[in-house]
Amino acid sequence: MFDTVAIIGATGAVGHIMRKLLEDRNFQAKQFRFLASARSAGKTLEFQGKTYTLEELTKDSFAGVELVIASTPDDVAAEFLPSAVEAGAIVIDESGYWRMKPEVALVIPEINPEAALEAKGIIASPNCSTTQMVMALKPLHDASPVRRVIVSTYQATSGAGIAGTSDLLEGSRAYLEGKKHDYQVFDHPIAFNAIPQIGSEKEDGYTSEEMKMVYETRKILGDESIQINPTCVRIPVANCHSETITVETERPISPEEARQLFSDFPGITVVDDLQNLSYPLPSTCDGSDEVYIGRIRRDISSPNGLSFWCVSDNLRKGAATNAVQIAELLAKHKACT
Amino acid sequence: MFDTVAIIGATGAVGHIMRKLLEDRNFQAKQFRFLASARSAGKTLEFQGKTYTLEELTKDSFAGVELVIASTPDDVAAEFLPSAVEAGAIVIDESGYWRMKPEVALVIPEINPEAALEAKGIIASPNCSTTQMVMALKPLHDASPVRRVIVSTYQATSGAGIAGTSDLLEGSRAYLEGKKHDYQVFDHPIAFNAIPQIGSEKEDGYTSEEMKMVYETRKILGDESIQINPTCVRIPVANCHSETITVETERPISPEEARQLFSDFPGITVVDDLQNLSYPLPSTCDGSDEVYIGRIRRDISSPNGLSFWCVSDNLRKGAATNAVQIAELLAKHKACT
Repeated sequence: MFDTVAIIGATGAVGHIMRKLLEDRNFQAKQFRFLASARSAGKTLEFQGKTYTLEELTKDSFAGVELVIASTPDDVAAEFLPSAVEAGAIVIDESGYWRMKPEVALVIPEINPEAALEAKGIIASPNCSTTQMVMALKPLHDASPVRRVIVSTYQATSGAGIAGTSDLLEGSRAYLEGKKHDYQVFDHPIAFNAIPQIGSEKEDGYTSEEMKMVYETRKILGDESIQINPTCVRIPVANCHSETITVETERPISPEEARQLFSDFPGITVVDDLQNLSYPLPSTCDGSDEVYIGRIRRDISSPNGLSFWCVSDNLRKGAATNAVQIAELLAKHKACT
Repeated sequence: MFDTVAIIGATGAVGHIMRKLLEDRNFQAKQFRFLASARSAGKTLEFQGKTYTLEELTKDSFAGVELVIASTPDDVAAEFLPSAVEAGAIVIDESGYWRMKPEVALVIPEINPEAALEAKGIIASPNCSTTQMVMALKPLHDASPVRRVIVSTYQATSGAGIAGTSDLLEGSRAYLEGKKHDYQVFDHPIAFNAIPQIGSEKEDGYTSEEMKMVYETRKILGDESIQINPTCVRIPVANCHSETITVETERPISPEEARQLFSDFPGITVVDDLQNLSYPLPSTCDGSDEVYIGRIRRDISSPNGLSFWCVSDNLRKGAATNAVQIAELLAKHKACT
C-alpha cells in the first residue's frame, strides 16, 4: 500500500471516471490528497466514503507524496510534474506531454508492465486511440512481427473532454430544432458530421493525433521498424472510439488464429459474428474496461494482411482504466518487495 | 432529344433528387412518363412546370419508350427492366441488381462514357460508395496503375433511403430526450453510434456493400488486377459519404502530383489546407454534384502509397447525378449521330 497518493485533475472527464474506478476497484492508500487549479481549490468531493477538500496544485504540493496520478492538459503536466518527481514521487501521467521523452516509461500494463516497474520518475499512459490499437496489435506482434498498419479512426467527442460531448449533444439538439449552435471545442460542427482532423498539423500532412499513434505504438511495442499510417476522424458519437485496422505481419495470420490470439489476450473481448449482426458498437462498449474486436477477416488485398474493427471506451481503457491499472501494478509490486 | 423518357421511382430519396436535377439541368424530351408501384399509381407530381399522374409500373409499360431511368430496389429492377429492354428502350438503372452482369455496362460518364454509348440494353450506375472512390482513383490510375486500395467508409443514413434518415433524426431526438426509438431500417441504433456493417455477409467475412466496392471498381476501370480491401461503416450523418483511401500505385505519386491530377479531373474538387482547417466535410459537400478530396498526403507506411479523404453527396454523384449525366451523354450522342 502507498502512504500518500495525490490525484491531480479529479474533476475532469477522465479524472471523474478515475476516481470512480479507484473506488470500485478498492484502491487503498494510507492517505489521499486531491490537487486542482486555484479556481477549483477549496471545493469538496466525496471519495471512498470520505469528504476531501481540493488543494491548490503548486510546485510545493508534493512533500511526502509517494504516488501521483495526474489527468491534466499538457501544459499543466509540463509545469508541475517535474516537481513531483524531484520530491521523490512516482508519477502516472495521462497527458500527452511526457510520453515520448526518452526517460519516461510509456505503459499499457497488459503489454509492457516491466517498463512501469523499472521507471524512476514519470510513467505515461498512452493516447486513447493508440491504446486500443496497441492492445489489438500486441498478440499479433507476438505471433508474427507486425510490419505495417493502416488505421482509420471513428473517434468520440468525449476525447475532447466534457465540453466536447456537450458540444455534440447541444449541437445535435440545435440541429434538430433548426437552430444554430456555437461550438466551443470543435472547429467545425460535429453534430451529424465527420471531421477528418484531430489535433493540429504535425508533419508530412499528418496531425498530432495521427503521429501519436505512430510514435507511441513503436515505443510501447519496442519496435521502431513498424510502419503505421493513421487517419484520425471525429464522428458524432459521445463515447467510445472505433477503428478499422489493417495489419501486415511477417507471416500471414489467419482470421481463425487471430480470433484465438485476441481471445487469449487479457483485456480483449472478441465479438465477431457478422451473420448474426454481432460486432462491437460504441453503444455496447460504453462503460467497459475491455478492448473489443470484431469483423476479423483476411485482408483480401494482401497475402500477409488481416483486417478488423476495434472499439473501446476511450475514457476507460483509453485513459482512466489504464492509469489505474498502472497504479495497481505498482501497488502490487510494492507489496511483494 | 429523346421521344419518350420513362422515369421509374421518382418519389424515392434518389428519385426525388433525379427529378430536380432533370429540371435544373433542363433535360428535354418530347414526352415524359412517370412509373411507380401500384400503391403510388394515380398520385400526381409536378415536373418542368407540368403535372404528371404516376402510372402503375407493369411489364407492359414500355411500348414506345426510348429511354428509361430507374431508381428502384433490386427486386423491382430485376423483375421489370428486362421488359423495357425487350420493348427496345435503353435503360439507366440505379439499382445494384444488374451492375455486374457481363452484358450490362457500368458507367461513370467522366471515366468510361464509351461503355454507355456502346451499350445495347441496361446501363447501370454504380454503388454510391464505389462511385466517389473510383472518381478519385481514375486520375491516379491513368498516371500510374493502381495496385492496391485500402478504404474505410463513413456512410450517411440517406444511403438507406428516406426511412434511413428518418431513423437517424428520430433516433437522435429520442436519445436526447432520454427515450427509446424503434429503428425501422437499421439493425442497431444509429443515433450517436457507428455500425460496421452495410448490407449482408457476402464472402470471406466481407459484406455485400464492401464487395460492391471491389467488383464494381474493377469493372469500371477495366482492370481485374486491382486489389481492394474495404470496410464499410454507417455513421450518424444524414447525407454525404466520406472515405479514407490509401492507394498503392506502380510508381509513387507525390501529394503534389496527386493534387494536380485530382484538380485537372472533371467532377473533382480539391479542398486541402490542413493548417487552415480546410478539408471536405459532409456538411459542406451536401447538395453538390462534385467529388471532394482533401488530406492528400504521402502514405508514411509504404513507399508507393498515397492517402486522402474523399467526400461526396451519395444521393447526387453517388446516384441521381451520375444517372442524369448518363442520360445527358446519351442525349448528346443521339443529337450528334
